[in-house]
Amino acid sequence: MHYPHTIQNLIECFKKLPGIGEKTAERYALATLDLDEDVIKQFSKSISDTKTKVKRCSRCNNLAEDDLCEICKDKNRDASLLCVVEDPKSIALFEKIGTYNGYYHVISGLISPLDGINPEDINLDKLIDRIKKEKIKEVILAVKPSIEGETTSLYISKILRDTDVLVSKIAHGVPLGTEIDYVDSLTLELALENRKQVIDDN
Amino acid sequence: MHYPHTIQNLIECFKKLPGIGEKTAERYALATLDLDEDVIKQFSKSISDTKTKVKRCSRCNNLAEDDLCEICKDKNRDASLLCVVEDPKSIALFEKIGTYNGYYHVISGLISPLDGINPEDINLDKLIDRIKKEKIKEVILAVKPSIEGETTSLYISKILRDTDVLVSKIAHGVPLGTEIDYVDSLTLELALENRKQVIDDN
Repeated sequence: MHYPHTIQNLIECFKKLPGIGEKTAERYALATLDLDEDVIKQFSKSISDTKTKVKRCSRCNNLAEDDLCEICKDKNRDASLLCVVEDPKSIALFEKIGTYNGYYHVISGLISPLDGINPEDINLDKLIDRIKKEKIKEVILAVKPSIEGETTSLYISKILRDTDVLVSKIAHGVPLGTEIDYVDSLTLELALENRKQVIDDN
Repeated sequence: MHYPHTIQNLIECFKKLPGIGEKTAERYALATLDLDEDVIKQFSKSISDTKTKVKRCSRCNNLAEDDLCEICKDKNRDASLLCVVEDPKSIALFEKIGTYNGYYHVISGLISPLDGINPEDINLDKLIDRIKKEKIKEVILAVKPSIEGETTSLYISKILRDTDVLVSKIAHGVPLGTEIDYVDSLTLELALENRKQVIDDN
């Protein structure tokens, strides 16, 4: 025991966070000692609040402090659009862009028959029910581009085949600002396949 | 506001720690949500305890939860040795090695005339008093190898010149396991200057 118990405990707690090892945890714990008293209070309170105050939105599964999340509470959004994401972090990413004005739905995983994850395991029924009930016109799938993502996308579009709901997915291709040399061949193949005509506006 | 208040507050708190930016803070805050309830309690408590429970040892300035730190409380150490360090973290480093068995003293900075930091600003009197009072035989300086470190070392040895106290400093040189090519020239110069004779034991 090289530090007082409090510091040693704090180091152990920091180590529970992703990617934090002994040295970094030690650095953070010692830096915590130098924080102002009000920051310390806020920090301590926010951490315990994560268990007591933060819940999941009953409608879309986003992080929320009330029954509905801030986005579901907002009546000024386009109720005909629903973006399906894998986690609340994706919602934050889309919200940062600020151009999407519909609602979201967080599914709790992706279908993966190899890992024994079937549609019922990720609670897709709730999503399907919601789509049918809320008169949604377009479902935009924004899940990870992977076999599991594809399987999940196909499953959802198959179930909604007999409805008027349009199912789309976000485009995959070469990211802006990237040298083409550094893009993997699968992405490049997709980018070539999904090429768009260059339109001359003049 | 893309996250509930609690998460947003937690992100702001994590950002106060060294080297944590927006993205990392977001990652840690979301990971905090997944921690077990008892870890959350411990985490929250440890953070607030840093302000209420952690003090400085009245004898050596190390981090402590009582009047004396765990090391000063330990009567089985060699009271004739005193290692002078810059911060409690250095003590933890030496304790991890486990070969040093004397006591420590943390000074609150290094003398730096250019920055206007004089001996009285870093409370060197307390150290000198302690050395004279506690019948210490050797003071080992383990401060940063820099102009400020040298100045502080020289100042302490000058003050103790008329006493029987031996003042030493830890060796500087090429670290083990390092390619000589990567060592800076000042370190290499020091290593050459402080060369030791190779003794053939046979």
